Amino acid sequence: MKILEDRIRQDGVLKPGNVLKVDNFLNHQMDIALFDEMGKEWARRFADKPINKILTIEASGIGIAAIVSRHFGNVPVVFAKKAKSINLEGDVYKTKIESFTHKKVYDVIVSKKYIGPEDHVLIIDDFLANGCALQGLIELVQEANATIEGIGIAIEKGFQQGGEIIRSKGIQLESLAIVDGIDDASGTIKFREQ
Amino acid sequence: MKILEDRIRQDGVLKPGNVLKVDNFLNHQMDIALFDEMGKEWARRFADKPINKILTIEASGIGIAAIVSRHFGNVPVVFAKKAKSINLEGDVYKTKIESFTHKKVYDVIVSKKYIGPEDHVLIIDDFLANGCALQGLIELVQEANATIEGIGIAIEKGFQQGGEIIRSKGIQLESLAIVDGIDDASGTIKFREQ
Repeated sequence: MKILEDRIRQDGVLKPGNVLKVDNFLNHQMDIALFDEMGKEWARRFADKPINKILTIEASGIGIAAIVSRHFGNVPVVFAKKAKSINLEGDVYKTKIESFTHKKVYDVIVSKKYIGPEDHVLIIDDFLANGCALQGLIELVQEANATIEGIGIAIEKGFQQGGEIIRSKGIQLESLAIVDGIDDASGTIKFREQ
Repeated sequence: MKILEDRIRQDGVLKPGNVLKVDNFLNHQMDIALFDEMGKEWARRFADKPINKILTIEASGIGIAAIVSRHFGNVPVVFAKKAKSINLEGDVYKTKIESFTHKKVYDVIVSKKYIGPEDHVLIIDDFLANGCALQGLIELVQEANATIEGIGIAIEKGFQQGGEIIRSKGIQLESLAIVDGIDDASGTIKFREQ
C-alpha cells in the first residue's frame, strides 16, 4: 500500500538491530486519516469474506481495529487483554504469548461471551515479526470454534518468520507494507513488491 | 446522553461493591457505532474549543479516542503508555498512577515528541471514578505546557470523588453518563439529570 510505505519512509525511524520505529503515526501517536485508508484497503482485499467481528490485542492494535470496523459495517471489535483483570470475570479463552520486545511471557485472554462458533473473524494488528502474538490470537479464535476469515497487518517484517508461518496455515494474511530489509546506516528500507 | 444511558441499562452488569461492568460494548467488546455517536456529542459540547490533539491512556480509552478524532477533523490521537517500553526511546513525560482496580501503582509515559506547548488537548477516557488516571493525564499535559481544552468521559461514577476534583480545577469535564447510584440487588442504576 503505497501511502503506508511512503509514510514509513518519511516518518519511520531506523535503529540498529532491524528496529523500525513508527510511533509517530502508528503505535503511540495515531494518524486516524491513515487508519481510515488502511481500513478501505482491507475492505477491498477481504470483500468476499462474511466478516462479522474484528479481534485485536491491546494496546497498539485497538485504534487501528476501531477505525477499520467502520469499513466492515461497524462490526464489533474485541480486544484481547494481556493480563487477568479482576473486572473481567467469568469464563475466558486464554493463551500465552512471548514478547521479544518486552522479553517476557504473558497471558492473553478473551471473554467467552464475545467470541463463539457463529463468528467470522478478521484479526487486526499493527506489526508482524516473529508472529508470536498473532499465533496466540489464532489459538484464541480456534478455541472458540470461530472462523478466521483473514488477518490484516499494517507492517510485516518480511525478513522474520511470522508471515511465512501464518501463510503456511492457509490463512489469508494481508500486510499493507512488507519490509524485506532495513539498513539503518544508510537509512534505507526495502519493501516487498505487492 | 440518552443512548448511552439506555445502553448501560440494557447491557451493563451490576455487581456488589458499586461495580458496573460494561465490557459488552465499551471496554472489551467495543460498539463502534455507539462510539461514533459519543464522538458527535463531544464535538457538540466542545464546539468552541480549538482542539488539535486527543490524549488517552491504554488500553480502554484508545478505541473511543480513535473514533472521536473523526469528529474533530482527524486530529492526532496520542495514547499514554502504562510502562516503559524499550521501543519508546528518548525523552518522555512521566507520572505515576494508582489503580484501585488492579491494586498497583504504575508509571505512565508520553513521548515529548507528541505533546508540546502548541497543543490544545482533549483528554478522552472510558471511566472516571476516583480520578487517579485522569489526574495523571492532566499532569502529563501540564508538564508539556500544553493547554487542556477539556475532558470527555464515557461513564462517570458520580458517587466517587473524581468528577468533583476535576471540575474544581475549572476544567470542562463532559461525562456522557453520570451514575449517581447502583443497586445491584434490585438491578437499578440512577443517572444524574444533565
